[in-house]
Amino acid sequence: MNQEQQDNLQNAQEQGVRQKIARMDEVILLDFWVSMFGMRVRIALAEKGIKYEYKEEDLRNKSVLLLQMNPIHKKIPVLIHNGKPISESLIIVQYVDEVWNEKAPLLPSDPYQRAQARFWADFIDKKMYDAGRNVWTTKGEEQEAAKKEFLGNLKLLETELGNKPYFGGDSFGFVDIALIGFSCWFHAYETFGNFSIEAECPKLIAWAKRCMEKESVSKSLADEKKVYEFVSRMRNKLGIE
Amino acid sequence: MNQEQQDNLQNAQEQGVRQKIARMDEVILLDFWVSMFGMRVRIALAEKGIKYEYKEEDLRNKSVLLLQMNPIHKKIPVLIHNGKPISESLIIVQYVDEVWNEKAPLLPSDPYQRAQARFWADFIDKKMYDAGRNVWTTKGEEQEAAKKEFLGNLKLLETELGNKPYFGGDSFGFVDIALIGFSCWFHAYETFGNFSIEAECPKLIAWAKRCMEKESVSKSLADEKKVYEFVSRMRNKLGIE
Repeated sequence: MNQEQQDNLQNAQEQGVRQKIARMDEVILLDFWVSMFGMRVRIALAEKGIKYEYKEEDLRNKSVLLLQMNPIHKKIPVLIHNGKPISESLIIVQYVDEVWNEKAPLLPSDPYQRAQARFWADFIDKKMYDAGRNVWTTKGEEQEAAKKEFLGNLKLLETELGNKPYFGGDSFGFVDIALIGFSCWFHAYETFGNFSIEAECPKLIAWAKRCMEKESVSKSLADEKKVYEFVSRMRNKLGIE
Repeated sequence: MNQEQQDNLQNAQEQGVRQKIARMDEVILLDFWVSMFGMRVRIALAEKGIKYEYKEEDLRNKSVLLLQMNPIHKKIPVLIHNGKPISESLIIVQYVDEVWNEKAPLLPSDPYQRAQARFWADFIDKKMYDAGRNVWTTKGEEQEAAKKEFLGNLKLLETELGNKPYFGGDSFGFVDIALIGFSCWFHAYETFGNFSIEAECPKLIAWAKRCMEKESVSKSLADEKKVYEFVSRMRNKLGIE
């Protein structure tokens, strides 16, 4: 066997090992259909083209697997990659981006741009969920304050978006993934809050429609009517008229 | 000029450019001496050997610079690198690690280990500050609950530390940086809470002493007695006996 043949054999063997490793990759997602945090992970995995097993959790009766895999927070989403769990949605998305780094980069490569992307994703985490929840769990003055807070946060995000197609610029990325899951809740916020997000933040609504043209997003988000029905049932359970 | 001379000249020119760039690096930190979040950034910069200008903020009368550089949260710490601001302490530490990547790596290189480091740093952010504050701002049953919560969180961290010298293993890193600033507040928590952290978490106290042997840490943390006096003044202002 000459050198070229030896090299070819070695390449073929290495490729075989890589393919075997790829086949061996076991990816499981513990999730709950209406969670905007779970949606982030679904979108990241879809962007990367990763096949995975989706396991729906009953949050009132959490599985032993969830409690074992996320004993600290006991929350979805949890990604289990070859038996090893990763929790907290933004941390999972970064992990997915770092492990499957050959296609669809989600975070920018420039450190300053990465820091900015992390800043806005963190802003969404700290500000959007509670503000949104307050819109549909309160009434009267408290609700007016919640709507003002919610819209104020969205307007800051709209200003950050500016005239770019996506938050990171020309391609869909980390901040888009962090925020877009909230858009399928907009209909519920608007109906129970009796206000229009589009009237206040037209560019953000145009951005959400742009994101929904991507199959990775449209297949990962819940139907807004089903989210509305879910919120309606939650309000009944909480005794809100 | 022969090839070697040409190469030497080129090397000298490249080195000159790098030195010029290094000299041009302007690094400013907006901070407040007692902030455990600011301490994270001070330690990261010290680990990397970065010279910077420290600007103390008066948080009751924030500077125009702070309001310009962090208009969203209006909080310290803010790192200003060549005129560009980065906010949120853990995001700053990651930025510092990515920009000055030639020495003292703070995050592990393995994606799974990175995700775990981010998870625990995030846990500290979500759990330690509020629990600690509740220890010195409350009384009676409320304070008992706060102490229980605070110690419970520390015990989870102690379990995660295990018998390793540092959270990441043999070398000081991201999770150590995230947590160690709290240790100079321990004396205040213990005195106002009338409890002993060392009695409950001896390994964690040993870890804190180990960290303090590093100059990057000891020079970045506030004196525990001064922190105690600061907390005492805060309690007076809040009308707590």
